[in-house]
Amino acid sequence: MKRNETLLELLLELQTLDRVPRMGFVLRGVPEPESVAEHGWHVAFLVWAVGARVDGLDLARALEIALVHDLAEVRTGDIPLVASRYYAEGAKEEAERGVFEEVLGPLAGRAGELLAEYRAAESLEARLVKACDKLQLILKVAAYERWGSRGLGEFWENPGNFKDYRIGPVRELFEELRAKHGPPPEPAERGR
Amino acid sequence: MKRNETLLELLLELQTLDRVPRMGFVLRGVPEPESVAEHGWHVAFLVWAVGARVDGLDLARALEIALVHDLAEVRTGDIPLVASRYYAEGAKEEAERGVFEEVLGPLAGRAGELLAEYRAAESLEARLVKACDKLQLILKVAAYERWGSRGLGEFWENPGNFKDYRIGPVRELFEELRAKHGPPPEPAERGR
Amino acid sequence: MKRNETLLELLLELQTLDRVPRMGFVLRGVPEPESVAEHGWHVAFLVWAVGARVDGLDLARALEIALVHDLAEVRTGDIPLVASRYYAEGAKEEAERGVFEEVLGPLAGRAGELLAEYRAAESLEARLVKACDKLQLILKVAAYERWGSRGLGEFWENPGNFKDYRIGPVRELFEELRAKHGPPPEPAERGR
Amino acid sequence: MKRNETLLELLLELQTLDRVPRMGFVLRGVPEPESVAEHGWHVAFLVWAVGARVDGLDLARALEIALVHDLAEVRTGDIPLVASRYYAEGAKEEAERGVFEEVLGPLAGRAGELLAEYRAAESLEARLVKACDKLQLILKVAAYERWGSRGLGEFWENPGNFKDYRIGPVRELFEELRAKHGPPPEPAERGR
Amino acid sequence: MKRNETLLELLLELQTLDRVPRMGFVLRGVPEPESVAEHGWHVAFLVWAVGARVDGLDLARALEIALVHDLAEVRTGDIPLVASRYYAEGAKEEAERGVFEEVLGPLAGRAGELLAEYRAAESLEARLVKACDKLQLILKVAAYERWGSRGLGEFWENPGNFKDYRIGPVRELFEELRAKHGPPPEPAERGR
Amino acid sequence: MKRNETLLELLLELQTLDRVPRMGFVLRGVPEPESVAEHGWHVAFLVWAVGARVDGLDLARALEIALVHDLAEVRTGDIPLVASRYYAEGAKEEAERGVFEEVLGPLAGRAGELLAEYRAAESLEARLVKACDKLQLILKVAAYERWGSRGLGEFWENPGNFKDYRIGPVRELFEELRAKHGPPPEPAERGR
Repeated sequence: MKRNETLLELLLELQTLDRVPRMGFVLRGVPEPESVAEHGWHVAFLVWAVGARVDGLDLARALEIALVHDLAEVRTGDIPLVASRYYAEGAKEEAERGVFEEVLGPLAGRAGELLAEYRAAESLEARLVKACDKLQLILKVAAYERWGSRGLGEFWENPGNFKDYRIGPVRELFEELRAKHGPPPEPAERGR
Repeated sequence: MKRNETLLELLLELQTLDRVPRMGFVLRGVPEPESVAEHGWHVAFLVWAVGARVDGLDLARALEIALVHDLAEVRTGDIPLVASRYYAEGAKEEAERGVFEEVLGPLAGRAGELLAEYRAAESLEARLVKACDKLQLILKVAAYERWGSRGLGEFWENPGNFKDYRIGPVRELFEELRAKHGPPPEPAERGR
Repeated sequence: MKRNETLLELLLELQTLDRVPRMGFVLRGVPEPESVAEHGWHVAFLVWAVGARVDGLDLARALEIALVHDLAEVRTGDIPLVASRYYAEGAKEEAERGVFEEVLGPLAGRAGELLAEYRAAESLEARLVKACDKLQLILKVAAYERWGSRGLGEFWENPGNFKDYRIGPVRELFEELRAKHGPPPEPAERGR
Repeated sequence: MKRNETLLELLLELQTLDRVPRMGFVLRGVPEPESVAEHGWHVAFLVWAVGARVDGLDLARALEIALVHDLAEVRTGDIPLVASRYYAEGAKEEAERGVFEEVLGPLAGRAGELLAEYRAAESLEARLVKACDKLQLILKVAAYERWGSRGLGEFWENPGNFKDYRIGPVRELFEELRAKHGPPPEPAERGR
Repeated sequence: MKRNETLLELLLELQTLDRVPRMGFVLRGVPEPESVAEHGWHVAFLVWAVGARVDGLDLARALEIALVHDLAEVRTGDIPLVASRYYAEGAKEEAERGVFEEVLGPLAGRAGELLAEYRAAESLEARLVKACDKLQLILKVAAYERWGSRGLGEFWENPGNFKDYRIGPVRELFEELRAKHGPPPEPAERGR
Repeated sequence: MKRNETLLELLLELQTLDRVPRMGFVLRGVPEPESVAEHGWHVAFLVWAVGARVDGLDLARALEIALVHDLAEVRTGDIPLVASRYYAEGAKEEAERGVFEEVLGPLAGRAGELLAEYRAAESLEARLVKACDKLQLILKVAAYERWGSRGLGEFWENPGNFKDYRIGPVRELFEELRAKHGPPPEPAERGR
């Protein structure tokens, strides 16, 4: 796998994103866990759906950020959140920069700029995408639990999964989600 | 399954889009075929990637259309192209309208408008999404063939899969794709 | 995909029925949901198993109806019951007639006659197959719940899934099934 | 797993047949290989489709035999043909009798009689089912090869997979299948 | 499939062990059940992990036994425990000997000796592997239940699944496992 | 996910290794790619099979190294080889040390020592495991190609995948593998 020199080459490689599973779900035994491409679609849809409630948003910019935010995983795979604490600070970010340069080839400039904005998490658009990235995670947890998965309590308990980045409508959705679909008050089963 | 009355309800139901397979690939025996959510991500990414080469494009509008264009499949499933000729004209469109109303609930107005624009295929934005919808299909066919799938020749032979809707940069990608990844000149194997 | 002109061609195409998933289960997140071919086998087996308790049944005829009743899905995919209300009346039936003609080719006459009898739902044989089609659905729901799936309550609550078409032994099985494997009296979990 | 004492219990256990893979395909690396239930459906359909060309056939009897012929695999799993030579003669048959008694419970009598007829392979009906059991195997091999599977040459080379049991129309289908879809005259790739 | 005459041939065939599912889990509807290769890895790891607590153990010998103990399944598939009572005594053992001779080819001598020691279950090493084979089963059951599978109670109730073969540290793990992860005291759901 | 304080806890977590896919295969579209647990089994088996031909080998030590060499992936997932060049030198190694400490808990000491020996790649045992790790990769590539996968040429072309670490019998297997199963001399298909 080398640098993609043409738009066509990079488009073909990105088809692979369908096969990259979201590792946080893999490691909890969720059957047929979502792919990075699926996650990406839901985040973009959330940005669109919630964005209408956010004053002063540049929707196009937010959608662009959403579309590129996980692209590096087409070469690195998805590193589960639980694993990030084992890496030196900045190691993942440095790797992402390298992947962007090689995978996105002719689009690396535009995409790299969007990625930098996402990481900085300062602009309204970047903050909305970051918030939707977390919101999508918890929505998917709720969906998997509804379908029968168990053992996903850690997702509900980790405050880092509820970071709304000061976007009011996202905060409201988080609260409604926890109230209606959060884990039952007490674990009824022994030791599980 | 009823009408979703809240944003949260509809967001939860849409998680299901990960499980709806693209039937054209299912019916040709492709293992682990892409989901409608995955297809949707790739179409949106294409709109972004190709859009930079299209003069006068309203990128936000085009991305919005891309995000909603297949949403009805969360209730109907994906009806393969091959099957559409068995339905009375307009039957699929009528069904889509009904689904939008019930699934999208509070967002049905905005989404329905985008869907209508997509179907009319007149605006530059709608034409770009339609063209990318086809381009993504052929990109995925090329990816599956690279991975080992066979028996996908019909996709290359169907002129309806190469409709560029008068968008120059898409036409160029179609031509490059066919030239570099199209089916071999002659089927070498007997009867297959 | 064209009209199958020979028996061999149609037999080969029908192998695809293994890959067509039953959409009602897909849309509720059941992992590895049954295929249309699997459903077909169980319905035929039910006809045989229950048929022995049904006076005056022409078993061969009933089995023939069972074998063809879902064949059109090899081209249309399985349209989930939830979606049928979005289609104009008769749209699905018309599509099925078109598919039968093209897929079944040399067998289209015999099969079309059986399909018409199935739809009319008047003969004892057609009524038994219709009843077994529903009974199999609920048996599969019960099996999936036993294996860990959740969120399938709608199937138990929909009276249309318990249509016994006036076949006594099927009614008894429905009642026993609900009594022994029906959903617990009250949903213990919040909001799910 | 004990003896099923009621019809309902046995019907529920048989749903498991969807998950029992056909081992001959598993051992050749076919992705998403057919289940025993899927195989069963195709054999029954073949009996119906070919049966119309067979003089003097009792169709109901043949379909009954087709429906029960592999039922024991719901407890034993599918033992691949390649493995049968490692077992003492009659070991598999004896095991099948034991399973029928326990799984089929109230239906064990009827089903056991059909199984005995199948094994004896003397009646026209039993011979047709045996022939269709082999024909289905080769049809599926041809379908998998069309979809991209390789390394299935052994199925074409094993004369035991083309046993037509003196049923003319089956013989013709075997010949047509081999002529049109048989393996290419010479393996083009080195060592594979 | 013939006798493997070279080391390379047998190594290639053994790659297939990844696709052979553990049938006990298949028959209880566990999604994506473990393969025989996965089971083999866990048993070997257990031998290593627990072995440090077992006085006088020849670790190399125990690991060798663990590595070969299920190899025959690369041709026979995994026969679920529930099915073994349908076979005549010694039928499975005889089949395994035949498979070892053909699959392992140049290694059949060494491997056959290890298999014989395993079956005799007299040496400390063989007893440890047998105990770990059961312990791994129950660990996997506990993992599947944690992930959402249900209907696995039979595994906990079968005393044959808790045979520690007089190895103290295994007995302790069994007890801790049952105490912390065993099935809830009473089945809360009706009829399931 | 925290530090496992007991042997039982760590054994339960390791069951997850069945679900961690080998990313190099995922990124090339291999259906149902091997898991890290499956890879681990094959490497251990290779060490056993080839080890008999290696003079002066401490088999127990080599098997121990094989069993622990990829354990960190139960928290980090498998980082594909292609991605390692994007990480700062030593980043992966540092992460592995952190994971070992937390996952292996009471066994972290023993396991960490084996991992250090593996990385140093100086002892005969460590060199054999490293060589078998590569050999297994190419064996699996050859198996997947035999089953129908395409687009795996990069594995054959990367000299880093044929590092025999000065173990004669491994070198011989590599040579035989390439001679008998290597890619065909010239790619026959256009652009693929």
